[in-house]
Amino acid sequence: MSFSPLISELVAALKCLPGVGAKSAQRMAFTLLERNRDGAMRLSEALHDAMEHVSNCEQCRTFTESKVCGICANPSRSESAQICIVESPQDILAIEQTSQFKGKYFVLMGHLSPIDGIGPSEIGLDILQTRLAEESIEEVILATNPTVEGEATAHYIGQMCKSHNIPATRIAHGVPVGGELEYIDGNTLTHAFSGRREF
Amino acid sequence: MSFSPLISELVAALKCLPGVGAKSAQRMAFTLLERNRDGAMRLSEALHDAMEHVSNCEQCRTFTESKVCGICANPSRSESAQICIVESPQDILAIEQTSQFKGKYFVLMGHLSPIDGIGPSEIGLDILQTRLAEESIEEVILATNPTVEGEATAHYIGQMCKSHNIPATRIAHGVPVGGELEYIDGNTLTHAFSGRREF
Repeated sequence: MSFSPLISELVAALKCLPGVGAKSAQRMAFTLLERNRDGAMRLSEALHDAMEHVSNCEQCRTFTESKVCGICANPSRSESAQICIVESPQDILAIEQTSQFKGKYFVLMGHLSPIDGIGPSEIGLDILQTRLAEESIEEVILATNPTVEGEATAHYIGQMCKSHNIPATRIAHGVPVGGELEYIDGNTLTHAFSGRREF
Repeated sequence: MSFSPLISELVAALKCLPGVGAKSAQRMAFTLLERNRDGAMRLSEALHDAMEHVSNCEQCRTFTESKVCGICANPSRSESAQICIVESPQDILAIEQTSQFKGKYFVLMGHLSPIDGIGPSEIGLDILQTRLAEESIEEVILATNPTVEGEATAHYIGQMCKSHNIPATRIAHGVPVGGELEYIDGNTLTHAFSGRREF
């Protein structure tokens, strides 16, 4: 026995959400049907509108429904000569929450991964190349993730900056604030030592 | 800083799903935007169609988009003189997976809970009353959950059956198959002892 066609389809469709399996999808479908039909209708519209209208910012490649995203369109931001390279739009949110960085961003939407067929043009480095050549940029901050692929991507972009004579910096890797030394992995500790600064 | 309006709306709407908070909603929104726009469109349609068309079966109150659900409409099922009372449509699925029960169902869509304003008519007992009076039913199987409210609901329906001279039975409560006695709670063990049968 299975559910009626529309309910089966809803359960199947809910499984496209990350972290949602058969059981959770079932629970979600029935909870919405029983208790929150308005919320489900709102979700249906929000999904439709977002998928239909959200694309990438022409300048920084983050997700936005405008041609240019809020940060790139902000005049006080565009005066800045710093550009911060991140892997995903969520990274922008994390950095913005610190309120420390006042420059612009460039979102790779991934990282170099030749084995998966992701080369420089797939992560928008052709657009970045043009920006490096045309804009007056004083510093490129490489904030890709400290993973193997993230480091390789940072290295590649570092080389690009060098060819344009633009200084590139990498965010610091080390012991997280509030972390305890004895629980930190060796790799991070090595970074923390090699990146030590005068006190 | 926040996301663009359509993305913020999508994140907010995703939070209507049970078990999804701010962080998961964000992750879902970006995963769909990055990797599965087709899946998201399909989900949007599935949600819309299900919320629009799914209502309750006229006979057993389970969710269906037809007037009468698959089980109630099945001629081999409708010959049966047994009716099984469950709290939710998911309970039907659980029972159907055992392939043991060949009768019809009646779904309460909840349980009696006077403190929340849920009385007999809210869980469809007026419809059940009519069925008990009009159909030739030989046995009512009470399969509500073994909680305080579920037991109270079973008791109430048991009284209704008595007034119609229809025998009512309650599913057995006891040690789950594969369970170990030492880890079973006292209440369940008490049920297991009082419900013992000749070996």
